[in-house]
Amino acid sequence: MQRSNLISRIRESQSFLCVGLDTDPAKLPPHLPASRESILQFNRAIIEATAPFCVAYKVNTAFYEAMGREGWDILFETANMLPETHFRIADAKRGDIGNTSSQYANAFFKAMPFDAVTVAPYMGEDSVAPFLQFPEKWAIVLALTSNAGSADFQQLKINDAPLYETVLQRSQQWGTPNNLMYVVGATHPEALRQIRTLVPKHFLLVPGVGAQGGSLADVCNSGMNPDIGLLVNASRSILYAGSGEDFAEQAAAEARKMQQEMAAILNDRLEN
Amino acid sequence: MQRSNLISRIRESQSFLCVGLDTDPAKLPPHLPASRESILQFNRAIIEATAPFCVAYKVNTAFYEAMGREGWDILFETANMLPETHFRIADAKRGDIGNTSSQYANAFFKAMPFDAVTVAPYMGEDSVAPFLQFPEKWAIVLALTSNAGSADFQQLKINDAPLYETVLQRSQQWGTPNNLMYVVGATHPEALRQIRTLVPKHFLLVPGVGAQGGSLADVCNSGMNPDIGLLVNASRSILYAGSGEDFAEQAAAEARKMQQEMAAILNDRLEN
Repeated sequence: MQRSNLISRIRESQSFLCVGLDTDPAKLPPHLPASRESILQFNRAIIEATAPFCVAYKVNTAFYEAMGREGWDILFETANMLPETHFRIADAKRGDIGNTSSQYANAFFKAMPFDAVTVAPYMGEDSVAPFLQFPEKWAIVLALTSNAGSADFQQLKINDAPLYETVLQRSQQWGTPNNLMYVVGATHPEALRQIRTLVPKHFLLVPGVGAQGGSLADVCNSGMNPDIGLLVNASRSILYAGSGEDFAEQAAAEARKMQQEMAAILNDRLEN
Repeated sequence: MQRSNLISRIRESQSFLCVGLDTDPAKLPPHLPASRESILQFNRAIIEATAPFCVAYKVNTAFYEAMGREGWDILFETANMLPETHFRIADAKRGDIGNTSSQYANAFFKAMPFDAVTVAPYMGEDSVAPFLQFPEKWAIVLALTSNAGSADFQQLKINDAPLYETVLQRSQQWGTPNNLMYVVGATHPEALRQIRTLVPKHFLLVPGVGAQGGSLADVCNSGMNPDIGLLVNASRSILYAGSGEDFAEQAAAEARKMQQEMAAILNDRLEN
């Protein structure tokens, strides 16, 4: 998907919500047995119910890999269910030497129809570059993640600036705001403001609102740019909003609530 | 696999060779069409031919993921082919927030019979810890990788020491030499000597000998410890040693050549 399309979709739907499909067979509603068909039925219902309220889906590959032998097939089926109108992210945290990263890029961009893959930066330029070779496809590089472990290395100082700032500065040279985004956790609103000055144009994928405790208002205050520039992800709070037969309606209600908060923020911004 | 078993296996077979199953359907011998059955036939033949000369196998997940919908099934079949006498590594470079890393650990340690997974350290302790919760299973954390991109972040200085040394120092506290190894590329023999002083007991998984240009003698001089402490990987140089119907014999000959070099090094060491 082109950047301009993504921005148009955000403006039309008054939403920059990304719904995370971290589907855990152990957490399906009790009326759905933990089978391939149930998982696909669950994902299909969640996608159909939430599509009007979001602009992106993020499929967490770990949950599919953990499903055993059929997991990759279920991931394929799920990827193919995602509407083309939405930005489709494989949250896979991949990254390896160049010839191996090329294989990962083939997996998600050629064998599957994802628009973007999340990529870990530790192995440097040749581990990220292969994801930037596909037209209208994106690498979303980890900068400052939402978890406690982000303090272990990402926040260590290199010449007085934290490592994640160096990651932002160097990796910007490998791509453009048209094929490169960054992961910045909602749990760091103060850092997000500084990050926005370093990457004024890039979209940021922001996990950590909801189950992990980040605030949507804080994220928007610190991270929005003139093109909006944010995709805010929610996974568990939407997927498991209800556990009855009306789980999809409950998920839709939760997604709609977030979309309405986003619409209000976008309106406030237009007025000011 | 327990550390003591791995050390015994190395001493018995006079080998610390790891064979990398980076099987690329485009590089199969011409008499094998690029089908599921051919790929499995190729892997089975390589495993049977090389098993006497190596102590470990490393399956590069990227190559299987790139195979499309069947890739994960082929990975399962391959994992289940690996002999239990050998240390079985999923070279997957995974790592995510805690609840997601737990899913990756389930995928490789419960759904599949791997002994170890390679893990990227950028997301810190809670991204690595879930891989350390399984008895006789291992996390192999990226420290200093073999590729050019290792200069981008891994070698940047934090308080006068490169980032990879900080990774070694902090991550040592998360596990023990019985469940934690490190990836150190053969292309950095001078750094390997210093790394060995920081992690005197840990096994190091060393890619980069062969196609990437590292030298086995240099690696052994710099990195061996009293328990040997090295698994030296070769992938392309063994897998694609021959392209005829005798590809497995050619692979065996190449593996045997490396094993003999290793046996000579081990003997020299005993004598000195």
